[in-house]
Amino acid sequence: MPPAPGDREARREDVSEAVWQVLADKGFGGLTLRAVAAAMGVSTGMLMHYFPTKRALLTHALDLLEKRTAERPRRVRPAAGLATVRAMLLDILPLTPGDTARNRVWVSSWDLSLADDGLATEQADRYTRLRATIRPHLEAARDLGELPAAADPDQLAATAVAFTHGLVVQALFDPDRFSHDVQIAMLDDFLVSTALHRPDGGSRPGPDSGVRP
Amino acid sequence: MPPAPGDREARREDVSEAVWQVLADKGFGGLTLRAVAAAMGVSTGMLMHYFPTKRALLTHALDLLEKRTAERPRRVRPAAGLATVRAMLLDILPLTPGDTARNRVWVSSWDLSLADDGLATEQADRYTRLRATIRPHLEAARDLGELPAAADPDQLAATAVAFTHGLVVQALFDPDRFSHDVQIAMLDDFLVSTALHRPDGGSRPGPDSGVRP
Repeated sequence: MPPAPGDREARREDVSEAVWQVLADKGFGGLTLRAVAAAMGVSTGMLMHYFPTKRALLTHALDLLEKRTAERPRRVRPAAGLATVRAMLLDILPLTPGDTARNRVWVSSWDLSLADDGLATEQADRYTRLRATIRPHLEAARDLGELPAAADPDQLAATAVAFTHGLVVQALFDPDRFSHDVQIAMLDDFLVSTALHRPDGGSRPGPDSGVRP
Repeated sequence: MPPAPGDREARREDVSEAVWQVLADKGFGGLTLRAVAAAMGVSTGMLMHYFPTKRALLTHALDLLEKRTAERPRRVRPAAGLATVRAMLLDILPLTPGDTARNRVWVSSWDLSLADDGLATEQADRYTRLRATIRPHLEAARDLGELPAAADPDQLAATAVAFTHGLVVQALFDPDRFSHDVQIAMLDDFLVSTALHRPDGGSRPGPDSGVRP
């Protein structure tokens, strides 16, 4: 029997919470109607009123992940420049249980997204939006003299996102090694390195740079 | 009927190749006996002689990923210092079809590994080994004067791995935006930033650094 209309909204919240618990615990690979039903103590038949197909369950899970990410608490943003970039990247790192769960579910979603052209495009667009959110603050940092005049805000936004997500993955697998203090120290050192003016003020290593073999 | 013993070795190679094709195409989320059987044009019953359980199939897939990663062609390593670190990180980036497939399968494996304590520990150990492989070259770079005297090779190895894997993920989702040239330019700029001496020679931003809000 489907639930009465009056119960539906409250029940929908319960369903979303159960979906989230399964995701945080088992990832997308473990997200099944059976697992969600077990987390709620209901029958899979009841759940099929909400999710007639596996695809519907996955779509709901991805929407939930977007929603919880968009609505997460965030640090106050300083007015401009690198301090704002720092606050934005700290908001991404797994420094609270909620942020750890969200990161764990995001990393888990990449398997699903890489296997589906539509989802892969959505994930690529999500990365484009994330870089575009950071970019103006790098531009401001450059204009404030916090970055070299020749710094490329587009490239630096991609580098900052790369560093941050790669740190997320290592920290998820090894939280003891990557304590909160270690994550924050790594981020600060990364930002200091990024902020340093190159001796020649250029944004690329010259052909004689010791870095190129 | 199981295959005759003489056929077993050749058939085992065919099975591994089919498992790899499924992984590269659909990731661990799409790795099923049915999909491998379809890739080989055989029955799932035949495959059950090799993989009596789903767990056996996953274990084989992870072993195959380790083996193909260990045996991949690598760049010649310069003698010492940052140029070697550069060669090691270039060997990780998705700059060839083979490296792209391996990265795609690694990223896909994280969903599985995060959901299983034993696999998560193996992945954490794999990260520890990767950082330990890079670390001596950062130490050499410091001793050669390519890095500040106060540089922390352990932390820099974690930062280099973070940057590289985060770039891998963005490049897998958006190969047009992250062409080979862009990936290499980002890596070179990252290394130049890392190599720059801090004005005070220290490895941490001071309390008055403009980077801290």
